[in-house]
Amino acid sequence: MAARSFLGDMLTTLFERRQTATNFGDNRSLSDMCRSLLDAEGEISGLKLAQAILDRYARLTPDETLEFFLFLNNALEVDMAALNDAIVEYGLTQSMAGYAKISALSESPRQELLRRLNQPPGATQALVNMRRDLLEALEGTPELARSDLDFQHLLRSWFNRGFLVLQPINWESPASILEKIVEYEAVHAISDWDDLRRRLYPQDRRCFAYFHPSMPDEPLIFVEVALTKSVPSSIQRLLSEERKHRDAQDTKVAVFYSISNCQKGLRGISFGNLLIKQVVAELQQELPGLETFVTLSPIPKLNTWLADQSDIKGVEPLIQGTADQITVKAAATHYLLSAKNTHGAPFDPVARFHLGNGAQIFAVHGAADLSENGLRQSGGAMVNYQYDLDVIEQNHEKFVQSGEVCISPAFQAAQQKSRPKRAAAKTRPKSRASH
Amino acid sequence: MAARSFLGDMLTTLFERRQTATNFGDNRSLSDMCRSLLDAEGEISGLKLAQAILDRYARLTPDETLEFFLFLNNALEVDMAALNDAIVEYGLTQSMAGYAKISALSESPRQELLRRLNQPPGATQALVNMRRDLLEALEGTPELARSDLDFQHLLRSWFNRGFLVLQPINWESPASILEKIVEYEAVHAISDWDDLRRRLYPQDRRCFAYFHPSMPDEPLIFVEVALTKSVPSSIQRLLSEERKHRDAQDTKVAVFYSISNCQKGLRGISFGNLLIKQVVAELQQELPGLETFVTLSPIPKLNTWLADQSDIKGVEPLIQGTADQITVKAAATHYLLSAKNTHGAPFDPVARFHLGNGAQIFAVHGAADLSENGLRQSGGAMVNYQYDLDVIEQNHEKFVQSGEVCISPAFQAAQQKSRPKRAAAKTRPKSRASH
Amino acid sequence: MAARSFLGDMLTTLFERRQTATNFGDNRSLSDMCRSLLDAEGEISGLKLAQAILDRYARLTPDETLEFFLFLNNALEVDMAALNDAIVEYGLTQSMAGYAKISALSESPRQELLRRLNQPPGATQALVNMRRDLLEALEGTPELARSDLDFQHLLRSWFNRGFLVLQPINWESPASILEKIVEYEAVHAISDWDDLRRRLYPQDRRCFAYFHPSMPDEPLIFVEVALTKSVPSSIQRLLSEERKHRDAQDTKVAVFYSISNCQKGLRGISFGNLLIKQVVAELQQELPGLETFVTLSPIPKLNTWLADQSDIKGVEPLIQGTADQITVKAAATHYLLSAKNTHGAPFDPVARFHLGNGAQIFAVHGAADLSENGLRQSGGAMVNYQYDLDVIEQNHEKFVQSGEVCISPAFQAAQQKSRPKRAAAKTRPKSRASH
Amino acid sequence: MAARSFLGDMLTTLFERRQTATNFGDNRSLSDMCRSLLDAEGEISGLKLAQAILDRYARLTPDETLEFFLFLNNALEVDMAALNDAIVEYGLTQSMAGYAKISALSESPRQELLRRLNQPPGATQALVNMRRDLLEALEGTPELARSDLDFQHLLRSWFNRGFLVLQPINWESPASILEKIVEYEAVHAISDWDDLRRRLYPQDRRCFAYFHPSMPDEPLIFVEVALTKSVPSSIQRLLSEERKHRDAQDTKVAVFYSISNCQKGLRGISFGNLLIKQVVAELQQELPGLETFVTLSPIPKLNTWLADQSDIKGVEPLIQGTADQITVKAAATHYLLSAKNTHGAPFDPVARFHLGNGAQIFAVHGAADLSENGLRQSGGAMVNYQYDLDVIEQNHEKFVQSGEVCISPAFQAAQQKSRPKRAAAKTRPKSRASH
Repeated sequence: MAARSFLGDMLTTLFERRQTATNFGDNRSLSDMCRSLLDAEGEISGLKLAQAILDRYARLTPDETLEFFLFLNNALEVDMAALNDAIVEYGLTQSMAGYAKISALSESPRQELLRRLNQPPGATQALVNMRRDLLEALEGTPELARSDLDFQHLLRSWFNRGFLVLQPINWESPASILEKIVEYEAVHAISDWDDLRRRLYPQDRRCFAYFHPSMPDEPLIFVEVALTKSVPSSIQRLLSEERKHRDAQDTKVAVFYSISNCQKGLRGISFGNLLIKQVVAELQQELPGLETFVTLSPIPKLNTWLADQSDIKGVEPLIQGTADQITVKAAATHYLLSAKNTHGAPFDPVARFHLGNGAQIFAVHGAADLSENGLRQSGGAMVNYQYDLDVIEQNHEKFVQSGEVCISPAFQAAQQKSRPKRAAAKTRPKSRASH
Repeated sequence: MAARSFLGDMLTTLFERRQTATNFGDNRSLSDMCRSLLDAEGEISGLKLAQAILDRYARLTPDETLEFFLFLNNALEVDMAALNDAIVEYGLTQSMAGYAKISALSESPRQELLRRLNQPPGATQALVNMRRDLLEALEGTPELARSDLDFQHLLRSWFNRGFLVLQPINWESPASILEKIVEYEAVHAISDWDDLRRRLYPQDRRCFAYFHPSMPDEPLIFVEVALTKSVPSSIQRLLSEERKHRDAQDTKVAVFYSISNCQKGLRGISFGNLLIKQVVAELQQELPGLETFVTLSPIPKLNTWLADQSDIKGVEPLIQGTADQITVKAAATHYLLSAKNTHGAPFDPVARFHLGNGAQIFAVHGAADLSENGLRQSGGAMVNYQYDLDVIEQNHEKFVQSGEVCISPAFQAAQQKSRPKRAAAKTRPKSRASH
Repeated sequence: MAARSFLGDMLTTLFERRQTATNFGDNRSLSDMCRSLLDAEGEISGLKLAQAILDRYARLTPDETLEFFLFLNNALEVDMAALNDAIVEYGLTQSMAGYAKISALSESPRQELLRRLNQPPGATQALVNMRRDLLEALEGTPELARSDLDFQHLLRSWFNRGFLVLQPINWESPASILEKIVEYEAVHAISDWDDLRRRLYPQDRRCFAYFHPSMPDEPLIFVEVALTKSVPSSIQRLLSEERKHRDAQDTKVAVFYSISNCQKGLRGISFGNLLIKQVVAELQQELPGLETFVTLSPIPKLNTWLADQSDIKGVEPLIQGTADQITVKAAATHYLLSAKNTHGAPFDPVARFHLGNGAQIFAVHGAADLSENGLRQSGGAMVNYQYDLDVIEQNHEKFVQSGEVCISPAFQAAQQKSRPKRAAAKTRPKSRASH
Repeated sequence: MAARSFLGDMLTTLFERRQTATNFGDNRSLSDMCRSLLDAEGEISGLKLAQAILDRYARLTPDETLEFFLFLNNALEVDMAALNDAIVEYGLTQSMAGYAKISALSESPRQELLRRLNQPPGATQALVNMRRDLLEALEGTPELARSDLDFQHLLRSWFNRGFLVLQPINWESPASILEKIVEYEAVHAISDWDDLRRRLYPQDRRCFAYFHPSMPDEPLIFVEVALTKSVPSSIQRLLSEERKHRDAQDTKVAVFYSISNCQKGLRGISFGNLLIKQVVAELQQELPGLETFVTLSPIPKLNTWLADQSDIKGVEPLIQGTADQITVKAAATHYLLSAKNTHGAPFDPVARFHLGNGAQIFAVHGAADLSENGLRQSGGAMVNYQYDLDVIEQNHEKFVQSGEVCISPAFQAAQQKSRPKRAAAKTRPKSRASH
């Protein structure tokens, strides 16, 4: 009809079907139902059966859930002996039929089961939640990791970059989406709708999320952006209720001050790298005056790491309120440039993420996050990572190949000037080998 | 509801990105670019590189295309020896790492390549088209079937039932979609826009298509429906320009008179079964007065089969114009009930499709398609297959397990009445073994 | 583009134009600019000039605003002498030209000015706000009522029923619209977003608003609806946080418990009657199980009226907390059935509205609104008015012609049963003439 | 933005209501029904009654239609005597009530009737069509012009500039809209869908239409635009099937080669001026490389005018095929610069429209429209009118005040160069007074 978006309609259908999903009585055990779905019956009434299985699953007790996962893990496992035979046979025949047999046998039946479950409306979300449950069960039952490989494999196909949709989140967005932004914000909690409005409504604030067309009610990941005149050095000032709003056209800097993953069931299927880069591209197009793209990031493991260095003379965690901010900044700088984990990668997980994306350190600040949490984790220090599209690939290359922590020219210059005063230099550990 | 619009917006974004896809100079060979995409570089600039590869692919000559497919097929093949070793090792260790290794090795690198190619806007369509090319190349180079297994595997995941969107096609649909309906109609050609209007505009005509959110401009499959008072026995009368339009509320029968697959690159990924059933459900909800759901289907191989039976006395193809329609109907009935291919399935491909879906034969008609093509293929005979949701599963079961051709009670009764007169009975082949 | 709603696009355009409205320097006085807009200049650059006038208006001080209204009222007045001459002349000539002249002269130039001002994006809202200001100015300067007649005349044309759009408001609606619902709710204040969610999100709660296509961000009027099993007798129970949600399909009664006009500038252009009837029709279509449509309405002037009757023995306002609820109910019933204003219409404004719409009294309840406000205005009494589409026209007829207060058969029966006990009978005033 | 979609939804609602408009039996005469709508009954059941009246109207015979118009014109006329009395009385009292009485009496009851008729879905279109019928009836019954004044007055309010929506028309537009473009194209007929596709699909072709939100299926006016490298001098070359498409980004000139009004019932409510200017603004924003905005316009009355000058020596209509194109161009130039109608305005209606909008003559071409129609009306001559936003207001001013035909500097220069050769100079009529 003329009155409807052709594409909007597509998803309407998707959405409305969800409403009519009906219950479906079935007296069989859950595992029998799963086997049926894998058999001929699945061909003809797959949708109803899949719905029934997902409904049944949703009502399982924790014990029954574990039992179900063990069924998936053990009963629907690859037949290694048969696979082995097929490979040997193919070595002799090199026949297409032999190859197809290997191909079929090397995939576990549970993967096909998951694919067939993904038929009714809402199934994709249900399977993402099933994996969330699996990840929990995995902690006590590590062998379930075999099943998790199949989940990962499928989710990686289903949530392929080409299927994700970038969507601005603003004060015109549906309340049902906005309440999820409040719920999922993981970095700087949103206290209420007034706080949310301060983050979404002003001209100089933006938010973007990735969605999947089959889960239109659920953001996958979102980033909050502040548009500013200069690179910020304090999260409290950036989010202050009293701050003056700026005309977006007059701003020079886009600050990614919070990135939150929303779906526990999609752990390991990474979207953050893509999201930041696509948002940089979108903002550049809309606001050609933007010159600098940085984060204002926490340094969550600074104090943890310092605590571990306490055998080194003069090093101790930056206790809230007591550390002077010059010391804090110096310690944070040293930590970001030098502290490594046992794999030789940056010790700090946020640093690993942004440096791995090809970002570079732009500036380190003391007294930047004076919240309780900020003081506890890093004595108030924060860091700007810069996304400079011109050097992002070579930064990434250097980081991957030699573990080099890239820094911006300005930061390098500032470092050299301040070197004589750098107290934190003393905290440098004697040898890298110990990390 | 506003929700719908939010979703509509999502796909707008998707669509608009397409406009900005830019060319990208790269002097490397196509295979080198593919290897890069599989390497670390792919992590950081995968989108641009994928776009460049797809752009390059689109400009290949046929020879270069074949060369590219051979590269995929041979250079990006599963390492069978390594896979074998991993299986043997896992047999000893049963370690998770060992399992993960098998899992990784059993998937060919080209599958990961295809997944990484599916990042830029429009990539899904490009990969569907790539498979269309592969299917063509396959005819001369059968070994490419190994690569096709990977395409099938991925496309089956990407075009999973849960991601398909049913969309009505009508006179309010964009012209850009409608011209594709004209192009793809495979059963009863649409001669021009006036003909299209006659099929879409009237109250008593409907059309539905499946779409995938990442290919919003391309229908995957569509079905044309006529709403009538009684089960039709002639396609020419059904499509007559002079016919009287009926109020949809007054109709009793929904006739699926044409189903067309649109994407050659999705061969073997079946949507028709699902489509018909979902359309039945949609129509039942909208028009509770509908009582009967049937096709009006061609019998494309009737004359082909009759020609093969010509050693049997009295049997010969139903030459256009010469056969009397009682003979035609009888021959067609016999053929549909009895003629089998070498696998024991119905000889007729359209019969295989509908009977395999759980439909049943409802009526057979002579003089039902008097077009040149209709006379040539079946002497003018057509058949109604009925989709009766109450018995569809048991029909399917019988068909799969015993090859039984299910028929409706009314047809059974009509058969019994007409049996004495049934000339075609004589054409029954002596033994099934000969098929 | 396929990705957009054709009609959505229409309004997008409308909306986006608003963003680009530019300022426009003009050194002339506001009245000179208005005269220019009425002259030839208006033909060619009307849009820019209209925008400039509206921008200038928006920045006037209160004194300047009054001055502007006096300019409209006096300088752009109908030329009565000329009109008179034209009528006389037409009496002689009966010529078309003469008729056209009367037609032109009988409309004040300010009406044409307002029409020409209504060109730039956002102008309709600006003019509605201008009338809001005019209504305020009117209190001190009654002669401005002449201008107000022109505003009313135009707004009645522009907000003609045929242009209004009924829109469900729910938890999928944009936050920007929802915050206006919170702001405009005039009957039972919405305390915060949680409260709003309780009114919009549950299955058994609905909200509908009228919008005008040229003011898409602003509801004109909205009604909140509760779906229940039986007719409610307490607003606190109806809105209780602890109440159990019901499946909408299982409900029998739709309760209109709050109607709020949103635009002060549209005073006197009535939408409430239409809104309720259209919502009744919408709900009947969606939920055929609904049998009864009632309000749960305040009785805002009950105590005011009782205070005026205090010379009558035994009558006094129902002081909060002290009146027993049987007395309250009896007094409220008597009031609703008998108390009239000086025009002979019901004394109670809410009663006037609903009875004038053709509704009938269904039930009266004591202890129905125990909020401070409820006790103060009516001692806690509330009333259900019933919208029964079968009798709504004859009710309206009776009400208009004879002032009859219509009551439902059930209420009539209940009244007759309870009559002997009716304490409130004593409060009946001796004579109607006194009202 | 999601806001757009919310708006889109509004109009969906509008559209869907149309489907449910129901018939409504009423035995009264049409005039009695109209009187009822104006009475109290209209308050309560106005929508249904209005629908019934419009349905009845749609089925009237021509004679009954005329009778209905005479009823409107005579029975629902302004009461001139009462109006006169009210004016006299107001002269004495200057009371607000007196003013309000004049205001009420000066509007004919039929205007209020039309306003009340405009309630049901689709009513606005129905009333536009009613005026179309009235304009036809007017030809035989000139007194109906009184009623037409009321139609004009209302339609001017309802179709106020602020309510119009500019909408691109392209190959993604619904077929139901596109078939109307084919139908309404008044200048260069569109032969079929292939022709339409050539005008809408290519990058270097555009089309824009105005819509009214209450008539979403009906364009009001549309303009077709070609984007070119240079100002075109031939309509056949511009529309040639073989022409090469250009990248829109590379074009310098936007050519408005066809403007068509769609609604006969809106005659005299002018949109063309606004449309061209808004499209110029839209195109400038999208394609900053565009430098020149011109029409390629017919000269429809050239031969008509020349025929009237035939007493002047050497002047005769430019007979198709026989006139050499230098003569044609010279005659056309002279005509456009000099020929006036009896009001002193340009004789040519298309010239009147564009010059009145503030456009200026940019170039005149012979052999520009070699179609049968083009040769017949102007011997093949066409003209480019230029819309130069910098001078459009002063052009308009000059045109209105002194009747000056504005020309571009380039045209002026070309004229001066060619003057000695200008054959057409001889055709100049002796005196302007004769026009």
